[in-house]
Amino acid sequence: MTDTNNAAAAPASRPRGRRSKDMPDGRQALLIAATEAFANLGFDGADLRSVAAAAGVAPNLVRVHFGNKAALWEACLDRIVTLAVPAMAEVHAIAHDASRSLGDRLRALIIRVATFYAAYPEVRNFVVRRGAESPERATLVTERLLRPAYETARALFQAGIEAGIIRSQHPALFFALLNAALDQPPAFPMLLTRIAPEIDAETAWAQLLDTTIASLLHLPPAQAGGESAAGDGRTPAP
Amino acid sequence: MTDTNNAAAAPASRPRGRRSKDMPDGRQALLIAATEAFANLGFDGADLRSVAAAAGVAPNLVRVHFGNKAALWEACLDRIVTLAVPAMAEVHAIAHDASRSLGDRLRALIIRVATFYAAYPEVRNFVVRRGAESPERATLVTERLLRPAYETARALFQAGIEAGIIRSQHPALFFALLNAALDQPPAFPMLLTRIAPEIDAETAWAQLLDTTIASLLHLPPAQAGGESAAGDGRTPAP
Repeated sequence: MTDTNNAAAAPASRPRGRRSKDMPDGRQALLIAATEAFANLGFDGADLRSVAAAAGVAPNLVRVHFGNKAALWEACLDRIVTLAVPAMAEVHAIAHDASRSLGDRLRALIIRVATFYAAYPEVRNFVVRRGAESPERATLVTERLLRPAYETARALFQAGIEAGIIRSQHPALFFALLNAALDQPPAFPMLLTRIAPEIDAETAWAQLLDTTIASLLHLPPAQAGGESAAGDGRTPAP
Repeated sequence: MTDTNNAAAAPASRPRGRRSKDMPDGRQALLIAATEAFANLGFDGADLRSVAAAAGVAPNLVRVHFGNKAALWEACLDRIVTLAVPAMAEVHAIAHDASRSLGDRLRALIIRVATFYAAYPEVRNFVVRRGAESPERATLVTERLLRPAYETARALFQAGIEAGIIRSQHPALFFALLNAALDQPPAFPMLLTRIAPEIDAETAWAQLLDTTIASLLHLPPAQAGGESAAGDGRTPAP
């Protein structure tokens, strides 16, 4: 999250005007602002002039860097895929780590996916809510991101179903449930502690993750407490 | 959903201009358009002129009906509370129905909440994502909606935790997980069947709900199949 914030904040402190292609921060700032706009407003609703303003660059830079709106949208998807590649590689490694129990691997996978969503909260809106608004973009979202992400986890989910740890008729249904469960808005822990002040605000996010793991994985109670994200919800995580 | 669609569509076919307060459809159309704008753009980002245009009414009607933006936002929250009242009353009745087993009541509660989100997909963004952007609005969201909704379910969640059916350290953590899990974008079943074509598109939503129930409730396998929303995922729901 630090990287994206820096990239978004940087252009405001620089002089405006035409940038050449060898100034990657203008391009990057446009991608970040455009991802947010597409996620919030959809493809048709996003306005390129507002995107350029939010990115702190001159409006003509959209055309210079990307050509048109459709190409800008595809570049946003490409950026998300690039951001997701390390997480997918780790999920793949976790899924195939025969030295760990199935329960441990599923728990580690959930933590890795949760960390990705926490770092890039706009991704799910861009991909799932807005990416499905046209058949062409739904195809791109599916083929470039959803299918590869699903494929890294599918065999592990299937093994979890066969072992009774995952309760789903199909690994893709569990994939959908898991992604929805892990998409907590950044402000949610604060709202949570308002309705339940006894929940420590510092560890609310980690406690939510623990609850997600304990709920979604049907492990015997002895195994379920394994690697707690919140130190069993009683002490802050290190 | 039919009511809100009709209300949103109606003003377009009527002459524009000043409406008196006894024409409720202009007010209602403004509330629907404003809820969507606040959910997508946040309070500061929502533009009253665009809201009026989306509602098909004259821009001055915002001031006529609501006074200012803050009052419009509060009226949107009031409308959501009104929409949620029947669901909360049913959840309360389900929670206190001693004739049903704990597992049956929790299953019925999840189905009722899922039905509410399916009917009003903008609510969660308005309330949780955007409602937390200022302390004043976070207080209103918490006191008028989140706390009452949580209170209708809290005792049942607590009983579920004590019986081992719910795996959470605190009922509020389960409340948060459940709300996130049930917030599937309308287009998600379509994306799901693209990555797993063997899932029947007609019953994808019901199958997702079944998976949510089977995952979140730790019931013995014999009880877990109880009232399947998708007829065990093999036959379409009636």
